[in-house]
Amino acid sequence: MPHLVILYTANLDAQSDMKGLCRDLCDTMLDQRDEVGEQVFPTAGTRVLAYPAPHYAVADGQGDYAFVYLNLRMTSGRSGSVKEQIGQALLARTKAHFAALFDQRHLGLTLQIDEGAESFNARHNNMYSLFAQ
Amino acid sequence: MPHLVILYTANLDAQSDMKGLCRDLCDTMLDQRDEVGEQVFPTAGTRVLAYPAPHYAVADGQGDYAFVYLNLRMTSGRSGSVKEQIGQALLARTKAHFAALFDQRHLGLTLQIDEGAESFNARHNNMYSLFAQ
Amino acid sequence: MPHLVILYTANLDAQSDMKGLCRDLCDTMLDQRDEVGEQVFPTAGTRVLAYPAPHYAVADGQGDYAFVYLNLRMTSGRSGSVKEQIGQALLARTKAHFAALFDQRHLGLTLQIDEGAESFNARHNNMYSLFAQ
Repeated sequence: MPHLVILYTANLDAQSDMKGLCRDLCDTMLDQRDEVGEQVFPTAGTRVLAYPAPHYAVADGQGDYAFVYLNLRMTSGRSGSVKEQIGQALLARTKAHFAALFDQRHLGLTLQIDEGAESFNARHNNMYSLFAQ
Repeated sequence: MPHLVILYTANLDAQSDMKGLCRDLCDTMLDQRDEVGEQVFPTAGTRVLAYPAPHYAVADGQGDYAFVYLNLRMTSGRSGSVKEQIGQALLARTKAHFAALFDQRHLGLTLQIDEGAESFNARHNNMYSLFAQ
Repeated sequence: MPHLVILYTANLDAQSDMKGLCRDLCDTMLDQRDEVGEQVFPTAGTRVLAYPAPHYAVADGQGDYAFVYLNLRMTSGRSGSVKEQIGQALLARTKAHFAALFDQRHLGLTLQIDEGAESFNARHNNMYSLFAQ
């Protein structure tokens, strides 16, 4: 962990570089440092996945509305200030990405961070050796 | 918020109007009123996203089974009776949508409501001005 | 319930039989027995859905990295040992599925089990009569 999953209305695919957004938000996650200057998220475990919904409905449906939902799931236990910092950094990057579009069309963004409360957690990953932490 | 995310087996795409279901369930959400008669969900923040799974397995795999999972994520704090009312309304609309198909094929529906326990929550949305609350 | 939802980078579709993985993991779930020898999961309610992400970013993006996230959502209340057993069984099956690929490419797997804390839960399913529990 962590991962950021982006669920969005497919009408954005023709108007926005969603692959680029994934890369930018992944970099934003990797840039985060905690109170003692350490990288918050392990490089090898950080990923962003974006899914256009082929079927959707937004608000009253009377316009060509678009929506983007961003959900970061991270391991629990980080401080409130670190979580706030991460959320604000991701929000700022997302707003910048959609700034031009936001002035041109109806668009909603929601960003939430969840701390996992998983009952079981395991990983198998051959990328950790690539990155010195 | 809220949003309703529908995850389903892709074998339903040829048999069911999933776009229509999204619209109907979005309308159902917008129709909800609380104990004092106020709209439960803000119009501008209400959305439904449906995702056919291209790869899936259901039960023992010995038949052409179909499954639809509906998950409503809403802000926490609503009363138990309002949550029950919302769940029953969405369930009734979904059952009506699939009624004919339910008599013709193997099909399972599960509907759950989660109240978010997010550590960070932010939105950026230019649709609120469209709808008087 | 339960269901297992698999979110993964779409670069795996050409290299891995994801439909086969869904079937194998569904069978693994159906094989689980609790402390008194009873089937943990009802056959008619067990399903696996896998979604390739068309847009994604992993780690530093400097290689052709792949990621698979597996999330089992189950009803709360099972014992810790049963949850551990289920997680280890799913992990083992997933590692076996990707073993050859793991030796050939950069790949990360994360498996988590969540116990649902839903506020509303309902189902409508005509498959229960097919399976004696």
